[in-house]
Amino acid sequence: MSKMRTDCELRLSAEELHHSITDPALSGITLLNEIAARYPAAISFAPGWPPDDDYRGTDVERYLRIFTEHVCGRGPDSDSASGRLLFQYGPTAGIVRDLVTRWLAEEQNIAVDPAAIVMTVGCQEALAITVRTLFAEKDDVLLVQAPSYFGILGVARILDIDLMPVSEGPHGLTAEAVRQAIVQLRQAGRRARALYVIPSYANPSGHSMEVAAREALLELAYEQGLVLIEDNAYGSFARTGPQLPTLKSMDRTRVVVHVGSFSKIAAPGLRVGFIIADQRITGTAAGDSPAMLAGEMAKIKSVLSVNTSPICQAILGGMLIEARFRLTEHYQARRSAAADRLTAMLDALNRLLGPLRTQFPELSWSQPGGGFFVQLNVPFVADLAALTDSAQNFGVLWCPMSLFRTDGGGTRQIRLASSYASGDDVERGITRLAHFIEHRTAPARR
Amino acid sequence: MSKMRTDCELRLSAEELHHSITDPALSGITLLNEIAARYPAAISFAPGWPPDDDYRGTDVERYLRIFTEHVCGRGPDSDSASGRLLFQYGPTAGIVRDLVTRWLAEEQNIAVDPAAIVMTVGCQEALAITVRTLFAEKDDVLLVQAPSYFGILGVARILDIDLMPVSEGPHGLTAEAVRQAIVQLRQAGRRARALYVIPSYANPSGHSMEVAAREALLELAYEQGLVLIEDNAYGSFARTGPQLPTLKSMDRTRVVVHVGSFSKIAAPGLRVGFIIADQRITGTAAGDSPAMLAGEMAKIKSVLSVNTSPICQAILGGMLIEARFRLTEHYQARRSAAADRLTAMLDALNRLLGPLRTQFPELSWSQPGGGFFVQLNVPFVADLAALTDSAQNFGVLWCPMSLFRTDGGGTRQIRLASSYASGDDVERGITRLAHFIEHRTAPARR
Repeated sequence: MSKMRTDCELRLSAEELHHSITDPALSGITLLNEIAARYPAAISFAPGWPPDDDYRGTDVERYLRIFTEHVCGRGPDSDSASGRLLFQYGPTAGIVRDLVTRWLAEEQNIAVDPAAIVMTVGCQEALAITVRTLFAEKDDVLLVQAPSYFGILGVARILDIDLMPVSEGPHGLTAEAVRQAIVQLRQAGRRARALYVIPSYANPSGHSMEVAAREALLELAYEQGLVLIEDNAYGSFARTGPQLPTLKSMDRTRVVVHVGSFSKIAAPGLRVGFIIADQRITGTAAGDSPAMLAGEMAKIKSVLSVNTSPICQAILGGMLIEARFRLTEHYQARRSAAADRLTAMLDALNRLLGPLRTQFPELSWSQPGGGFFVQLNVPFVADLAALTDSAQNFGVLWCPMSLFRTDGGGTRQIRLASSYASGDDVERGITRLAHFIEHRTAPARR
Repeated sequence: MSKMRTDCELRLSAEELHHSITDPALSGITLLNEIAARYPAAISFAPGWPPDDDYRGTDVERYLRIFTEHVCGRGPDSDSASGRLLFQYGPTAGIVRDLVTRWLAEEQNIAVDPAAIVMTVGCQEALAITVRTLFAEKDDVLLVQAPSYFGILGVARILDIDLMPVSEGPHGLTAEAVRQAIVQLRQAGRRARALYVIPSYANPSGHSMEVAAREALLELAYEQGLVLIEDNAYGSFARTGPQLPTLKSMDRTRVVVHVGSFSKIAAPGLRVGFIIADQRITGTAAGDSPAMLAGEMAKIKSVLSVNTSPICQAILGGMLIEARFRLTEHYQARRSAAADRLTAMLDALNRLLGPLRTQFPELSWSQPGGGFFVQLNVPFVADLAALTDSAQNFGVLWCPMSLFRTDGGGTRQIRLASSYASGDDVERGITRLAHFIEHRTAPARR
């Protein structure tokens, strides 16, 4: 192939590839990563990655041993049984559903049957499976909390599902805003099938819904036949106060499909997440006992990736057993590190950007009670060109909020990730950001 | 949630879920697994799993150490660098592309740039990514070798892409049959966008294409602008003679997108596969240098699973390094085991079913040169009901070939997997199968 003549090649035109590839939800992130790669010395508030200081010496061997002994015991046959368990094909829905169920009961106040769970390749695959399973009709629309995690925008794009953004306020989504969206769609002859929502410490805004608002949303969903897709990736990362209750823990009418991730509490490299889908399905061929939504989702899972690596599931399983199912408590250090960084960022924003607010009242930021992100409103267009200027001339990286929207909004907003940059870098990075903002707003001051 | 009243639950009807869920390609496999689970004592020729005797003591720790030392060295900072490498988020397209490239050059006679590779969650995700990327237009059709691996049928179903089966002969697909399908579609105003083909030891038939037929297919594809999606899951498992050349190794015009799996050579539990997509894309926004298809595919990958577990990639990386990139040679024992089982099965079929052929000339089977599967033609309908009879009353499991077809064909065919059942079970299982066949054909003899 080295002697290939380029005039005798198959021609593939970009226009003939699936249109999602050129969609901002997918290509924006690629461009962002390219900018980040070009300025490796810049302090980065761009990636929503967990703090990575304490993965050193994570003992894979120990976790695997704990899990395989739990399943296969220590008898003479246990070695080959654990070999098969880890390295052979396995059940589509996973091999740690019982352990995850115990953790959900122990720490998340969610009581479900293991049969209601599907283990997935991270939260991202959980979203792809959930959306694919729930959407059949062309007229069905996915409501999304806006601004939205771009992973859900991407899923809708690759499956050709229409989206309708529902704008959040400083306390996240309101049932009223969701109701208006449902009505508006109905008037247009369409149906709101499901709503994607991150009720706690949302990505990208950092906003959280209050408990009363959650109750109102659950009530609305049942009344309207709307499925709530709850993404709880950041729920365990409260900065102050107790953990907020998940929608699923409050769900009395099975309107919530809950997707969770172990990437933030345990480690992203595991690529292990899960779906809770305890809804009963009517009208299946099986007849006698009603099927459960999780079982139907497992079929989609089998087509996307057959099953989630049992090795990765086993490492997580060992962690859960060692932590006696109090995983978030066990990894308290990781949660504290994230909370400290968020506090440090909010403190630095107050000290270093606060003084600019008298001149620019538009300059403001969210006050998240936890999670990984702060939303910053700026008095200028914060697009990829502005980001390049920021990276090249000021040495600081961030995300344009417009990447998280499909409605052309968010042009004067920035997502700052507090989770990844460590101690000193937060102070220095926000200082640089202040210089960048001063520079960008300078013409207006003259 | 324990006090839930079932009359106050959200009602989800099966009809409102995505139609793929009730498609035979997805639900047939679920039913098959349920039957298998009901008869655990039956000898199973159903699952296309690799022999699993030799996973015992697979040393994850050693492979991880070999790989992390290769990447991070052994210096004082290497511990935390390898922690980040394994447990943090990483590049979408993977961290072992350079090693896989060396293996492809060393053992597979395929010379590609690492940038042409996307690491995936097994071959299944590779198929989902490939098909999603290539199909944009409603009128485009995916040609599939028929009978087909049900994983490709499932991918087409969940993405709502129309399929057209192209029947294979005893030497697999012919360029002529593919040309006829293209012409037929064109006359109906539709385009054959791509062809899915397993040229070596196909799943489910065991058939292989001869070298001249491969050349003719490559030529046709270039002439017609048809992308060939080559699935090489079984290519390393020759029973007799040398390894057959892959389409990709013969590809002079970049018509082949090659998907590969390490599930059969290394271990399914890794869930690591890959795509080779070195096609250049015209008309992308980037402008200056033409984009490569693999780069566009990585965007789809990011939406399906963000990235493939770096832990699993690292285990594979350690295996590749330890094997000095001669992985299939290194795991010769695994290949010999598979070859011996296939030979034993063909031998048992000859001895135990051969005598029945004088009465039933329809009774025949393929003679695969390698791989995991034998196609058996029987003189009765071999559906799930027949399978239940076979499992319950004769203690032997197999796959109805109709699960691998979308055109209603294959009703009197069976897929036998030779790979999973071990030595004695092959003989005993085929004996049981002979009894089952005698019983089924008995009325006809009277």
